[in-house]
Order: sequence, then structure tokens, then C-alpha cells
Amino acid sequence: MRKALCGILEEAGRELLKARISTVSEKEGHANYVTDVDKRMQDMLKERLSALCPEAGFIGEEQANQQLTDAPAWVVDPIDGTTNFIHDFHMSVISAALLVDRVPVLGCICHPYLGEVYSAERGKGAFLNEKPMHVSGHDLSHALVGFGTSPYHPELGLPTMDTALAFLRRATDIRRCGSAAMDLAFVACGRQDVFFELTLKPWDIAAGSLLVTEAGGVFDMPLLDNPDYDRSSAILAANALCAAPAKEVLLEQLEKHGIGQENLEE
Amino acid sequence: MRKALCGILEEAGRELLKARISTVSEKEGHANYVTDVDKRMQDMLKERLSALCPEAGFIGEEQANQQLTDAPAWVVDPIDGTTNFIHDFHMSVISAALLVDRVPVLGCICHPYLGEVYSAERGKGAFLNEKPMHVSGHDLSHALVGFGTSPYHPELGLPTMDTALAFLRRATDIRRCGSAAMDLAFVACGRQDVFFELTLKPWDIAAGSLLVTEAGGVFDMPLLDNPDYDRSSAILAANALCAAPAKEVLLEQLEKHGIGQENLEE
Repeated sequence: MRKALCGILEEAGRELLKARISTVSEKEGHANYVTDVDKRMQDMLKERLSALCPEAGFIGEEQANQQLTDAPAWVVDPIDGTTNFIHDFHMSVISAALLVDRVPVLGCICHPYLGEVYSAERGKGAFLNEKPMHVSGHDLSHALVGFGTSPYHPELGLPTMDTALAFLRRATDIRRCGSAAMDLAFVACGRQDVFFELTLKPWDIAAGSLLVTEAGGVFDMPLLDNPDYDRSSAILAANALCAAPAKEVLLEQLEKHGIGQENLEE
Repeated sequence: MRKALCGILEEAGRELLKARISTVSEKEGHANYVTDVDKRMQDMLKERLSALCPEAGFIGEEQANQQLTDAPAWVVDPIDGTTNFIHDFHMSVISAALLVDRVPVLGCICHPYLGEVYSAERGKGAFLNEKPMHVSGHDLSHALVGFGTSPYHPELGLPTMDTALAFLRRATDIRRCGSAAMDLAFVACGRQDVFFELTLKPWDIAAGSLLVTEAGGVFDMPLLDNPDYDRSSAILAANALCAAPAKEVLLEQLEKHGIGQENLEE
């Protein structure tokens, strides 16, 4: 089923490259946009993924959703990096994961601008265009640290930038590309060594988290006991060497700024 | 000569995609790396560009350089985004400009990972893969603001992140991709609306600054009377709508942190 999932996302990727935006609307929160293309892509993915696995429900960014249960469910972001897409920034991806018993068992991200498909199946490894992929071996002092700015939550701007500065001082450099799913895929294939964001939604991370762990890395929601794909929370992904020191940096900053799980859920 | 320059940089781009790094060395400053590939690429570009314009001198990142004079000179960065290149981050470019009377008259940047070549000739417009390109029309409140972290200058970390936070509060979002030349090309083709970095070297900006102005944007070194391609300084590139308010944000932060031109030159 992994290869069939990759095929569907590659097809969606070709659509994304051809698509022209007709309408842009604002959703709740600052700078939270949706286009007619996001909606069209979600409809297409819902149809194709439901055909691939008819017993699975569908949770997507661009619709009102049921709560996640133990039953199988696709968790989909038709365009992760919508602001990039609106600006033609060439860094937007399509992300889909199949969850069973509330954890991802299959995940795929397609980056059509680079012609790359990243995928993983629980217990069976991770792949970039069908070649095995692995996280990097850099320690934190030699790390590239990606981050997200949680732009829909302006109150997280200062703690986010303060955390990024703490990483800039400890690591080689920081990156902010505007698609959390792409950032997780880049951790999984070893292009960056750490990624953090103070709050993300389940569809941003469902596929990427599986890519990271199947590629030998660590995916963590440091404010929860275990990753929970039904809640928004702070997330940290890292290679095995960086995971512990990066978690220390992140938790220190969350504490400094008085941010707990209660501040990250709407 | 513009098309011949594009051809040389496309060839260099193909070499970059094939190249495998054998050695990484640290230069002066934090996280300032050079690889054997940077040096090989510079030798190749020096030979080809000198053949294209034999009367021009050559100023490149990976050699000791003469001061810029009024005489024609190529100003070249064989790999802008070397840290990205070392991490296989897929966001490194090749940049070359011809300066006459100390200003760029011809500029080209090749982004081999996207298969894109951005070029401009003074007074004759700017092009993306030979199609005319233009800056965007977003105002600052709808802007994507790219920035660089001046990673070789750890003392600029705090003012840089503070300035980025000021832009995050005024604009749609911020981006940090790790190649100033790519960032300038992205301003020129309208993918981001503003780019700033507190200090950059002439080879980082020589080609990109011409792309931005020929694409209808503004390139500024706010701490100098005019852009000076023989000094390191703070730089700001923006579309016509964002240029004035973005300069205000940047100058306010430089003043707040007590940073003048004397802090930015070694």
C-alpha cells in the first residue's frame, strides 16, 4: 500500500505544479490562508485515499473534523505551506498518513518542486524516491536547526524567536522554510538535524513524524507523555545525537516563557 | 553576453549537482566552511568567465582578492549556501556579476536544484529562464520577509533575531533559507517581498542586487549613502511597496542595538 500511496501523492504533486489559484480566503488566526486549490486537492485526495483503504475515515486540514478514534483514519494536509504556495515560493508539499489505533502506520510526503517523494511504513524503514533514507549523524554543535514560527499564533512570536536564537548560539545555523511537513521530511533524509515548532496541528506532522522515526530519528512532543495525534502541541524532531540536547534547549525556553500545554490548545 | 553568462552558470550548476565533497575546512569566523568543491567550481568559473571577458579582473569568495577599482571585474560566489551544500539542503546557488565602474552591469544566479537561472543586464530587465521577471506587489502586512543570520558573526545573532521578530509582527511570515544570493533572486522574481541581512560580502550580493533593481525592486545598504561593492554592510532588498517601511523597521532595530557601519566591517 506504501507504493500506491506514493503514486497518489505524486499525482497530486503534478496537479499542484499545474494549479493556478483563483481565490484566497483567510481562516481563523493571523496569516492563515486557504485557496481554492487546497480545497480541490483535498477533494481529490479524499476520493483516491478512500478508494485505496475504504475502511479508513478522513481527517483533513480543509474541513470540519471528527475526533480521532482507534479506527483507521487518513490524516491529510493537501498543501502544507499554503503561504508559500500563494507566494509561489517553491516549498510546499502534500502530506498524508494512515493512522491505526491513533498512531501513524503509513506516511508519505510529496515535494513536487524537487521531484521528491518521502515515504515510510511502520517497522519497514523510510524511503526517498524508493531509496532508503536516514537521519544525519551531526551533533548539535554542527547541526542545521529548522523551525516554524506558528504564524497563526502571534503570541508565540517572541518565545519562538528566542528559542531559535538559543539554537543559533548552540548549532551551525537555523532554517525557516515555511512547511513543517517538508521540514520533517528534511530531518528524515538528513538535510537538517533538528526541527521544532511551538504548536502544530496533527495533519502537519502525522506523516512526517513516521518518516523521522523510521529513518532512525526521534519525534517528540515534549509537553505530552507521548505524541498525540489528536491535539496541538509543541513538537521536536531530531537525529539520535541531537534529540536529548535539543529537547533540553526547547524545554528551557518553554519554561522561561511560561508556556505549557494549556497555552497551545485552542 | 548575458546569455553566454547564463550558459556558463548552467554548466557550473550541473557540476554542482554531480559533485561529491571530499574535504570540508573551516575559514575565519563561526560556521564558515569551504569545501574542495567550492574551490574547484571557482577555478572552473574563473577560466570560463575570463575567456568570456578577458579584460575583466576576478574577485571570488575562495581566494585573496585585490580591492575593487573602476576597471571591469567579475565578482563571483562559486557556491552561495556552502553550509546548505554540506548538508545537501538543496538550496545552494552559483552567483556571478560583472562590475564596471564599481557597479554591476550584468548578473546571473543559477539554482540547479530547481533548474532555474535568474539573470539581468543593466537597463535591459531581468529574466527567469529567459522569461521577464518582476518583483511582487504585496505591501508589508502581506509580505514574506526573508533574512540571513550572518552566522560568521555570532555577536549579530541577537539583533538579527530581534529584527526578524519585528518583521514577523508586521508581515505575513519570515523565511531563512541559507543562501543570500537565492534570497535576492527570490525577491527579484516575486517569491518573497523583502530580504535583509545585517552584514554580507560583495560576492553574496553583486549579482542579486542587479536582479532586484532590474526586476523593479529596491536594493539598499541603509548604513551607506549608496550600495558599495567593496565593503561589507547591512543590506535590504524589497519590492517597491515594501522598501520604505521595511527600511524603517531595519534602521530602528540597528539603532536600538547600537549597530553602525563600523560594527560590520572587519
